[in-house]
Amino acid sequence: MSDVETLWADFKNRIATADDYVNSLRGRRMNVFFMGERVPEPVDNPVIRPSVNAMAETYRIASERPDLAIVHSGISDSQINRFLHVPTAPGDLVNKHEMQRELGRRTGTCFQRCVGLDAIGTCHSVTFDIDAKNGTDYHQRFLAFLKRAQAANVVIGGAMTDPKGDRSKAPHQQTDLDLFLHVVRRDDKGIYVSGAKMHQTGAVNSHWLIFMPTMRLSEADRDWAVVGAVRVDAPGLTYIVGRQTNDTRIVDGGPVDAGNAQFAGQESLIVFENVFVPYAHVFMDGEWDYASSLVERFTTYHRSSYVCKTGLGDVLIGAAASAAEYNGVEAASHIKDKLVEMTHLNETIYSSCMAGAHQSKPVASGAYINDEMLSNVAKHNVTRFPYEIARLAQDLAGGLMVTMPSEKDLQNNEVGPLIRKFLQGRDGVEVTDRMRILRLIENMTIGSNAVGYLTESMHGAGSPQAQRIQIARGMKIEDKKARARKLAGVKPSEK
Amino acid sequence: MSDVETLWADFKNRIATADDYVNSLRGRRMNVFFMGERVPEPVDNPVIRPSVNAMAETYRIASERPDLAIVHSGISDSQINRFLHVPTAPGDLVNKHEMQRELGRRTGTCFQRCVGLDAIGTCHSVTFDIDAKNGTDYHQRFLAFLKRAQAANVVIGGAMTDPKGDRSKAPHQQTDLDLFLHVVRRDDKGIYVSGAKMHQTGAVNSHWLIFMPTMRLSEADRDWAVVGAVRVDAPGLTYIVGRQTNDTRIVDGGPVDAGNAQFAGQESLIVFENVFVPYAHVFMDGEWDYASSLVERFTTYHRSSYVCKTGLGDVLIGAAASAAEYNGVEAASHIKDKLVEMTHLNETIYSSCMAGAHQSKPVASGAYINDEMLSNVAKHNVTRFPYEIARLAQDLAGGLMVTMPSEKDLQNNEVGPLIRKFLQGRDGVEVTDRMRILRLIENMTIGSNAVGYLTESMHGAGSPQAQRIQIARGMKIEDKKARARKLAGVKPSEK
Amino acid sequence: MSDVETLWADFKNRIATADDYVNSLRGRRMNVFFMGERVPEPVDNPVIRPSVNAMAETYRIASERPDLAIVHSGISDSQINRFLHVPTAPGDLVNKHEMQRELGRRTGTCFQRCVGLDAIGTCHSVTFDIDAKNGTDYHQRFLAFLKRAQAANVVIGGAMTDPKGDRSKAPHQQTDLDLFLHVVRRDDKGIYVSGAKMHQTGAVNSHWLIFMPTMRLSEADRDWAVVGAVRVDAPGLTYIVGRQTNDTRIVDGGPVDAGNAQFAGQESLIVFENVFVPYAHVFMDGEWDYASSLVERFTTYHRSSYVCKTGLGDVLIGAAASAAEYNGVEAASHIKDKLVEMTHLNETIYSSCMAGAHQSKPVASGAYINDEMLSNVAKHNVTRFPYEIARLAQDLAGGLMVTMPSEKDLQNNEVGPLIRKFLQGRDGVEVTDRMRILRLIENMTIGSNAVGYLTESMHGAGSPQAQRIQIARGMKIEDKKARARKLAGVKPSEK
Amino acid sequence: MSDVETLWADFKNRIATADDYVNSLRGRRMNVFFMGERVPEPVDNPVIRPSVNAMAETYRIASERPDLAIVHSGISDSQINRFLHVPTAPGDLVNKHEMQRELGRRTGTCFQRCVGLDAIGTCHSVTFDIDAKNGTDYHQRFLAFLKRAQAANVVIGGAMTDPKGDRSKAPHQQTDLDLFLHVVRRDDKGIYVSGAKMHQTGAVNSHWLIFMPTMRLSEADRDWAVVGAVRVDAPGLTYIVGRQTNDTRIVDGGPVDAGNAQFAGQESLIVFENVFVPYAHVFMDGEWDYASSLVERFTTYHRSSYVCKTGLGDVLIGAAASAAEYNGVEAASHIKDKLVEMTHLNETIYSSCMAGAHQSKPVASGAYINDEMLSNVAKHNVTRFPYEIARLAQDLAGGLMVTMPSEKDLQNNEVGPLIRKFLQGRDGVEVTDRMRILRLIENMTIGSNAVGYLTESMHGAGSPQAQRIQIARGMKIEDKKARARKLAGVKPSEK
Repeated sequence: MSDVETLWADFKNRIATADDYVNSLRGRRMNVFFMGERVPEPVDNPVIRPSVNAMAETYRIASERPDLAIVHSGISDSQINRFLHVPTAPGDLVNKHEMQRELGRRTGTCFQRCVGLDAIGTCHSVTFDIDAKNGTDYHQRFLAFLKRAQAANVVIGGAMTDPKGDRSKAPHQQTDLDLFLHVVRRDDKGIYVSGAKMHQTGAVNSHWLIFMPTMRLSEADRDWAVVGAVRVDAPGLTYIVGRQTNDTRIVDGGPVDAGNAQFAGQESLIVFENVFVPYAHVFMDGEWDYASSLVERFTTYHRSSYVCKTGLGDVLIGAAASAAEYNGVEAASHIKDKLVEMTHLNETIYSSCMAGAHQSKPVASGAYINDEMLSNVAKHNVTRFPYEIARLAQDLAGGLMVTMPSEKDLQNNEVGPLIRKFLQGRDGVEVTDRMRILRLIENMTIGSNAVGYLTESMHGAGSPQAQRIQIARGMKIEDKKARARKLAGVKPSEK
Repeated sequence: MSDVETLWADFKNRIATADDYVNSLRGRRMNVFFMGERVPEPVDNPVIRPSVNAMAETYRIASERPDLAIVHSGISDSQINRFLHVPTAPGDLVNKHEMQRELGRRTGTCFQRCVGLDAIGTCHSVTFDIDAKNGTDYHQRFLAFLKRAQAANVVIGGAMTDPKGDRSKAPHQQTDLDLFLHVVRRDDKGIYVSGAKMHQTGAVNSHWLIFMPTMRLSEADRDWAVVGAVRVDAPGLTYIVGRQTNDTRIVDGGPVDAGNAQFAGQESLIVFENVFVPYAHVFMDGEWDYASSLVERFTTYHRSSYVCKTGLGDVLIGAAASAAEYNGVEAASHIKDKLVEMTHLNETIYSSCMAGAHQSKPVASGAYINDEMLSNVAKHNVTRFPYEIARLAQDLAGGLMVTMPSEKDLQNNEVGPLIRKFLQGRDGVEVTDRMRILRLIENMTIGSNAVGYLTESMHGAGSPQAQRIQIARGMKIEDKKARARKLAGVKPSEK
Repeated sequence: MSDVETLWADFKNRIATADDYVNSLRGRRMNVFFMGERVPEPVDNPVIRPSVNAMAETYRIASERPDLAIVHSGISDSQINRFLHVPTAPGDLVNKHEMQRELGRRTGTCFQRCVGLDAIGTCHSVTFDIDAKNGTDYHQRFLAFLKRAQAANVVIGGAMTDPKGDRSKAPHQQTDLDLFLHVVRRDDKGIYVSGAKMHQTGAVNSHWLIFMPTMRLSEADRDWAVVGAVRVDAPGLTYIVGRQTNDTRIVDGGPVDAGNAQFAGQESLIVFENVFVPYAHVFMDGEWDYASSLVERFTTYHRSSYVCKTGLGDVLIGAAASAAEYNGVEAASHIKDKLVEMTHLNETIYSSCMAGAHQSKPVASGAYINDEMLSNVAKHNVTRFPYEIARLAQDLAGGLMVTMPSEKDLQNNEVGPLIRKFLQGRDGVEVTDRMRILRLIENMTIGSNAVGYLTESMHGAGSPQAQRIQIARGMKIEDKKARARKLAGVKPSEK
Repeated sequence: MSDVETLWADFKNRIATADDYVNSLRGRRMNVFFMGERVPEPVDNPVIRPSVNAMAETYRIASERPDLAIVHSGISDSQINRFLHVPTAPGDLVNKHEMQRELGRRTGTCFQRCVGLDAIGTCHSVTFDIDAKNGTDYHQRFLAFLKRAQAANVVIGGAMTDPKGDRSKAPHQQTDLDLFLHVVRRDDKGIYVSGAKMHQTGAVNSHWLIFMPTMRLSEADRDWAVVGAVRVDAPGLTYIVGRQTNDTRIVDGGPVDAGNAQFAGQESLIVFENVFVPYAHVFMDGEWDYASSLVERFTTYHRSSYVCKTGLGDVLIGAAASAAEYNGVEAASHIKDKLVEMTHLNETIYSSCMAGAHQSKPVASGAYINDEMLSNVAKHNVTRFPYEIARLAQDLAGGLMVTMPSEKDLQNNEVGPLIRKFLQGRDGVEVTDRMRILRLIENMTIGSNAVGYLTESMHGAGSPQAQRIQIARGMKIEDKKARARKLAGVKPSEK
């Protein structure tokens, strides 16, 4: 059995269902830490489990909504989960976005599988371009890797963001060279990489990781121009799961206090220490001049993937409407007007994302990529509108959202009855249901999933200024000036 | 020669070019009034002429950009101008919107031909539906009419908005029954209609008008449920052209003061007094229960047609960038940032419109109609973002935009040289060019074309509240509530 | 010793310092519950303690900034803490607001003593007005109470918001009459009240509570028209402390993870069961026609008290600037621009509050009350701008804010060194300091103090719609219409 | 008679009333141009006259509202018009702002007298400071000048903005040295100045002008550091009145079409060619190091003077409410909500301005100056909120605002009756009144007074970026950082 076959040996049985997926995570020897302690079996850790559940929905949707989540791949000539598909027509991106919105609706949080999906699309075309110029065989390697992944139906995580250290310096100029992931050694079997990747969504819940450079590189950064795939349990990898708002509430509270007891996101810091990657899994090694197009293509895909937040928006709008109903004020004109405003903003995000998918264009490898301008515009709206939707949701929720007793108080013999007596809203509404809905709004606006709905909307796939730079590049200002001057009667020769 | 043939006799020669079009407007005996006086030959009136020029661009673009503006019509089995085309695929609506944006860029104003275009699409499907239910032959009549129109390449205006009078009363309840257009008499040849239509874009520059009801009707309003086509010079029609900001500047100033000397919009009040319509040109007569779907389809088409404003936005962004360049401040970070913001808002509008076109769906007649939710969302953004783009353009323009001397002062021997001396900006920039660009920004933000860029963006195709009502209808709030409750753990049986 | 003297016996020793205050909270037998358990000594509960610390700052500031926090009271003719002062000149309200902003800056959270302060001002004038009409002696009772309170320097909490039950029904119409606090019995010594008050800020940290009706009442609600003062440890009172975002982080994490380890807010549900109030401490009993002016005056005072949020804004702006500095990007123009925007919004809130203080007017009792329109405008801005400031702070913080490991990971031998290696930002910045600042931004935007900075800004002193109703009442629309009509040339008689 | 006495000879008779004022403008030999022609008697020019009327209201208000507009001046120990008063207490600035708002309400436009007023306040303190350092006698000269002006009750205009030419160069570096006003010659009687001042509000309607430098100067710019007072009809002065939106509508239309037939603003370019200024009227000559404090003090005063726009806001809100009433939709909840929003924004501006007046501080001369931060914040809000108020006003107006016939059509026998028939709104509302109100909204949002309400709000007293620079300077970011770090637990030494 070759090295590569050994690496894939664990994945002989296709992961077919959500349960298969959850089981597939057990028994792996990974270095995972959370709150200062090693987590021997992450899938059974109560704080981590909701993020596993969210990822599992990407399998469940394939069973329940194959129209959205199952697609034929020309690469493996089979029906596969869309999260492993390279888009080859606008309709692929359109369906991808509909699937993402639906998953947002089902989980109310980040389901974590889009980074890997967008990494796949990106690697497909960048490896093709490198080979076309240099005669290398990265594209074939990548296709072979992807075929195996499609067959096994594994979760591939994408790892891009380096720690960056002093931002005024290039990778090779950093005092500590590991501040950007790089090749530290090569032998006849493969390469060894060291460094770290930050903000890694769902990494602990993945099976494989594709690591990629995080920014434009120069020739002196050649060793940092590296793309490859590793198993998440490869020796040398350490995961430190981030502390997030209300992460422990599921432990010290319960399902009501949690707001969304079932689903949550997950982010880790991944440290790479001399991690071995066999050549078969190396998709770029030294081609520094392709780093920028890799990053641009990835962000173009990934910025549109934030359409998922409209699914979260659907949940939050529904929660706000439920809160108003439970409070007995749903018929007030200002309540209805705020729900309309929330919907308008949510659908504006959706439309920006969808327009860019419909207007996607192919690159040389045949992969389709979202329209770059529209993808940036879409993500830029994502850095704004969810915050306003959240503000309006808090308005509709009322102050009780942040002053409510714990569900444990409800269970207490002395104060439980008092709470039931005084938190009674409209007739026929269970006090616990009212609390559940308010906790869900808390969860999404200043709680556990506010991380995914707000902060991640701000910074994921690039912070607002990154989009503004791209918009500035694509805005065709000289053409716009020429149009204005013509109408104003300025003679062209005068410039 | 039948009555109908007589009516079409003037249009034997296809209007092929922009010049043909302008010539086709001469020599008609229409009752046109402006500022208290009869206008014998509107095309030669200096205030009206820029609006004729804008309409003429809808012909010119067919020559210059046939990819956008020429399309094959299955109805007449020929290549026609897209402004006479019934969309039969999403791509038709996508191309329509690209054409509208391009015309916005070319004119910097309202080119007036979209109301008629959207009336055509609407009549196609509504006549089909009525016939399917009632066994009438409206659809064939309409197709026959449209074939002639396509062959002649005429401008069809759409006339929808009635004066409405007391808004708390239905048409048949009004003290003056003419406050909504209605059938006052029928004979064996046709019907006679009276009433008025307000805010009629480009009416004087059209060849034919399709009139339609403006709102949902009840059975008692049967005589008001009427759709038909009339020549603009039909006996009984009177046009009163509206007074708009800076309309006379082209007369008392000159091309520099005008800002956009060549192009402008046009709106009229049209009065109908016993206007005869032969049955061949009657497309609805009494089917009150189809008024609401007619209005909804029309507004769904037409709200997306406001994508044209992104073309105006392109011009205004270009003008603001030019002003900054002429002022020598284009490199300042806050200037660049404002241009990015303007672009971001402009492209957000574009994306909303385009998403709804791509996601259009067919109705029974085979015509495709934009996605209703997205069309409303798009138009709602149009009621907001152009105002912010205009505000930013004024910021970049600087105060000189409103304190500049007239171009006539430039021509004066005493003060002309003083102006040239003191209005000199950056080296190499002509004072007149600087003035031209500032006048263009004035024109689009508080001048003649502010009507089209701002106020019309607010009210055209329905005021903001109209969109909010539609968004409320389409927001699927019960599904959203159900999603939220499921995630919150509220049991479905509890509602 | 009279009943009243007995009630005040514990407060013989003036609470002079912050330490005195903390000690004064010990050894009281109160029914306090949190997360399902009785809390025997709240001051020593680690989750509650930060809220005690914040309240204690209202004592510390009196020592450190007597210019702001010490004032001469004509009522007791002595120097007192401003939190017990009835304002008798605009300068009193101006200084109050400066003190509130400074305390916001010192604590970064809600210091909880303003409700009682604003209750004092309100009761001063309302008791005066009732007596003037009815010949009662409420005002003297109130002054006597206040003199004792000033001498003892106690914390008075204000208790206003009733549970309200079915919002379409008046208090006397509720199925459960306790849904609004009311008199259930009277004897020769005093009254007995039952009901509950929600969202009670700092109640557990207070010494006395003044309870007041929450809305306009009618004659049938006479028993609900009751104002009085009770010791927080009076028999029949139960406190259920609310669960808030990240409340337990100080327990399961540590000072770094907490973000603001020292200070937090506190909200409780207080249940009243047959609580006795001697007549000396009853300040309204049945005068239902004064409920609305009581509520209006209280909200007018209290909406302006939200100037404290500008102090929190100062902290958040400073934190965002620090984060940018630690990230090494503070010189970027977009960073500076965002800090300016945050400051602009923060100072706009401040100016609205201060204008209303300067333009305060006296009522019959001699107490000064903020300008009502400006107070509503100020609070309405508080329901908007902190959300945008928080959004911008998240922008400047970067994504690390929500993906960072716990401080416990830092202490772990295996991963601690990895975190120090990879989270290193600009040279010379301690990794822990970077984490501390990011945790503070998390704390204020989606963490523990987001409750105070955001949700409380939305709903405290009345939700947005409550301000809009008041603005509508005070907007003098008829005068505005008359002005417009005069300029437009509409003759007045035509109206 | 001395030179100076000669210069004041025309002003022996105090201008007591609005009529006196209008008469005082006749018979002056000024070089005034408009639209390429010399204007022999500006006061009788129909386009200029409305601006004269607006200025005249500054006299009328002194008769009608002496509480606001008459004040005792210590300088001349007499009761004077507040527009000639140096503020010596916060109440002076508070009353000034109330007067400005009231004049905004009365005129709906710019009444033009604030620049001079703010120039007076500025010169008072700057001349004092220069003398204190240099032993010059500018302050006495200025007091003598001001006494005469107060006695005569003249209009003093302020002239600050130079053309600036190439903005990257200092005054002395410009190719054409006249691009900043400067001293070209001195003799024993006085100085001679050349150059130009742009955007001069109400210059033609003034009696005297105080010219001042426009920005920070260096020693090489010594000849540009000049302040002085000249009669508006001094030899060597030329005025070119700017072309503004709809300026000629009063001529080619009539009072209805004009919207606001009585009042308008005015801006001119003033050219100075060897204009003589006797030393008695020179208040700075070479003290380049005081140019920056002069500019800062002037802008601090003047940015707050934009409180006048809240008076215009009152008119526009009233007009929008009237339009809704005439349309019969005033009871709709969304209409009321928009009026509340407009009011909220308008009062927010007001509060920013008033807070800065109340918190004004004295400088060495005894003059009080608005709080600098709040004045900048106030003006910055003025660059935003009027645009949103105007947008909402257009929303309430409806589309008829821009499609209405001219009033001349109303007078036409053929179409007049048709207009009256079809523009009838709610019962009992005159069609003409409806048109008047809509024309007023047009006037203020895209018409003649949009210049004053919008563009001038953007650029007057400094464009938005100028305020942001000042806010950045005053934001005390180091203190804010220190506050944040303390709460976060960062040790100060680590900074």
